[in-house]
Amino acid sequence: MMVQQQLMNRILTELLQQGMTLPASSSQSSGGIMMDNFLNSTSVVPEFVGASQTGDTIGMCIPSVDAILLDHLHVSKKFTVIGVLSSRTGAGPQIMAMDEAVKATNTEVIDVEWPRDTKGGAGHGVLILIGGYDPSDVRSAIQVALDNLSRTFGDVYNSAAGHLELQFTARAAGAVHMAFGAPEGKAYGLICGAPSGIGVVMADTAIKTAGVDVLSFASPSHGTSFSNEGTVHISGDSGAVRQAVIAGREVGLKLLAQLGEKPVADFPSYIR
Amino acid sequence: MMVQQQLMNRILTELLQQGMTLPASSSQSSGGIMMDNFLNSTSVVPEFVGASQTGDTIGMCIPSVDAILLDHLHVSKKFTVIGVLSSRTGAGPQIMAMDEAVKATNTEVIDVEWPRDTKGGAGHGVLILIGGYDPSDVRSAIQVALDNLSRTFGDVYNSAAGHLELQFTARAAGAVHMAFGAPEGKAYGLICGAPSGIGVVMADTAIKTAGVDVLSFASPSHGTSFSNEGTVHISGDSGAVRQAVIAGREVGLKLLAQLGEKPVADFPSYIR
Amino acid sequence: MMVQQQLMNRILTELLQQGMTLPASSSQSSGGIMMDNFLNSTSVVPEFVGASQTGDTIGMCIPSVDAILLDHLHVSKKFTVIGVLSSRTGAGPQIMAMDEAVKATNTEVIDVEWPRDTKGGAGHGVLILIGGYDPSDVRSAIQVALDNLSRTFGDVYNSAAGHLELQFTARAAGAVHMAFGAPEGKAYGLICGAPSGIGVVMADTAIKTAGVDVLSFASPSHGTSFSNEGTVHISGDSGAVRQAVIAGREVGLKLLAQLGEKPVADFPSYIR
Repeated sequence: MMVQQQLMNRILTELLQQGMTLPASSSQSSGGIMMDNFLNSTSVVPEFVGASQTGDTIGMCIPSVDAILLDHLHVSKKFTVIGVLSSRTGAGPQIMAMDEAVKATNTEVIDVEWPRDTKGGAGHGVLILIGGYDPSDVRSAIQVALDNLSRTFGDVYNSAAGHLELQFTARAAGAVHMAFGAPEGKAYGLICGAPSGIGVVMADTAIKTAGVDVLSFASPSHGTSFSNEGTVHISGDSGAVRQAVIAGREVGLKLLAQLGEKPVADFPSYIR
Repeated sequence: MMVQQQLMNRILTELLQQGMTLPASSSQSSGGIMMDNFLNSTSVVPEFVGASQTGDTIGMCIPSVDAILLDHLHVSKKFTVIGVLSSRTGAGPQIMAMDEAVKATNTEVIDVEWPRDTKGGAGHGVLILIGGYDPSDVRSAIQVALDNLSRTFGDVYNSAAGHLELQFTARAAGAVHMAFGAPEGKAYGLICGAPSGIGVVMADTAIKTAGVDVLSFASPSHGTSFSNEGTVHISGDSGAVRQAVIAGREVGLKLLAQLGEKPVADFPSYIR
Repeated sequence: MMVQQQLMNRILTELLQQGMTLPASSSQSSGGIMMDNFLNSTSVVPEFVGASQTGDTIGMCIPSVDAILLDHLHVSKKFTVIGVLSSRTGAGPQIMAMDEAVKATNTEVIDVEWPRDTKGGAGHGVLILIGGYDPSDVRSAIQVALDNLSRTFGDVYNSAAGHLELQFTARAAGAVHMAFGAPEGKAYGLICGAPSGIGVVMADTAIKTAGVDVLSFASPSHGTSFSNEGTVHISGDSGAVRQAVIAGREVGLKLLAQLGEKPVADFPSYIR
């Protein structure tokens, strides 16, 4: 047996040298297998705050942004201290994570932009800019957002054919307001399916389940960056919004599974 | 020899356990190796009609759509019975398949949307909504469209560097009219190459071959969702349109092959 | 040892037959491992000029474009001789390469279009159309551009998480002017990072380093085709522009490395 294991190791080493790839990270998915957190590493770039393999998300802080650059950025309000949260995969999870961060710090979300990304998947990535008066506040907000990603990716389900995303907050703040037009202080829910037709049926089921306000329905040619997602944004009473989100999730999981593979999340669900 | 085969199997098992991937399905391509049809499976979601691995296409029917959701959808005409055909890869093939479906049923195409998708490839996916008066009509239309995919993917050719798509119908109906602006009742042809420059030369060759009407030329920044496709849409006499499509295909296959690999289709060609 | 090597070869052959893939080409990257140039192959399509594995770039020339097609193309000026440079990955490198080509020939850039591509990566591909009076001039321009790709891809750095692109010319010509709004005859620099937040910090560092004119800052929702790139375009004194580009590169390499992997270029850097 020992000999066989040695042989296996030798073969594996040789194959890896020849370039065979093992899936060290699930780069195609809307999540990432593990929360490989590089926070507080010995970076020599002072702007760096932290990074996470989850969504390939990087957080930075510019303590005093160049005035000319600031004029060319598309921000809703000008600050000299700028925080940056940027990812290849996500949008929803990072926005929800940042919503907690702005509640906890003296900072404001001043820009949310939507690349069509997900590394070949069906969704977006995101670029979030925040402003503040004190670099330590802004760094702290970026850190809080990074720390929240393992929670807000809890209801992102992936399969080879597509993905689902569910989000819920009992009290929306500035990030959710700027990104999705949700009224601040009220409960907010996001129900998303990809390919986008799954999101249409999820939305229909969710809205029929409980009395909620429909903020908007986003689809490939309307309200997305040409992503292949159907997403309904809802607001209202906390219990009703939660119930609608859960109903949308149930039908979405069954429909996406029809495309060949059970969708799975990388983190535990937070919406119960 | 037996011992060697046993060793091979043991090695393969071990490598697969360590996460090595074998190409079970060609998820990157604009088609899919086989028509793995899940139709009539024992789904517990009543809206589900059918699904196909070809283009990762799913078909659904909402017998009585929520009135508030309907207000938020971008449909050309309001129906309470809504059919949904949604895919990660394609657009053209699903639209042509739906064109046959609306000819065969009492249904109408009320929305065509264009995600930038193809799972990392150069093209689109699609979201098609249809409306009808009777759920069984709408389910039947979605079923007809799914059944047509193995035909309409017949002239989709893929290589690692790009793809070609050719489509032809002797008589365009509502899906082709809504999606491409083709006059109903006349012959219609689609000639597409990716990367997009190949489509420019295919279009030039096709138009010079036969006297046809040029409806439009779509390119990355004009008339696509930033896909890397050059596509000419033509209309006119059936024989001339067919001849132009075939001429475009011939030059496209030669040009795409110059990027290193012979393009191949997953299904038999239907344009002869 | 000989026996072991034979065993290895047998195993490798068997695995490859079973479909295991070895990375023959880095199809996901913004470059391509080697400059596999198919120029002057025995193509039977007369429009074909050349192709390169670098960025999956193909060059063609239409000696006398169809008049109806010309009406449907989105060109700034009408020529009957049209050159086409089209790629899955790049944009910046092909535009810089074409900038040298138009300096060296009697041709003009008449269209630059931006697919959202990079084969699942974070950036664009490109479609460039040029016009001229003589097919041999136009073919020559396309050839010059293809020959320049191994230089202009010299400061494109890739990792699994994203990429960086740096470009510099001491004297901008028509391609850079049309694509980026750079004043002709002056030095021009491009500083780009993906995911896009990295580009924000690179831009801030670059502009603070030297006195340059900021032409624009492009981000996912402004001035890109929803790519996940942050890009500052600068102009001005040659020494200052070069210094700013180099400073942006330095901080970008450190930030992108924080997402898990050292970024690497496929060709030698040309900006020193």
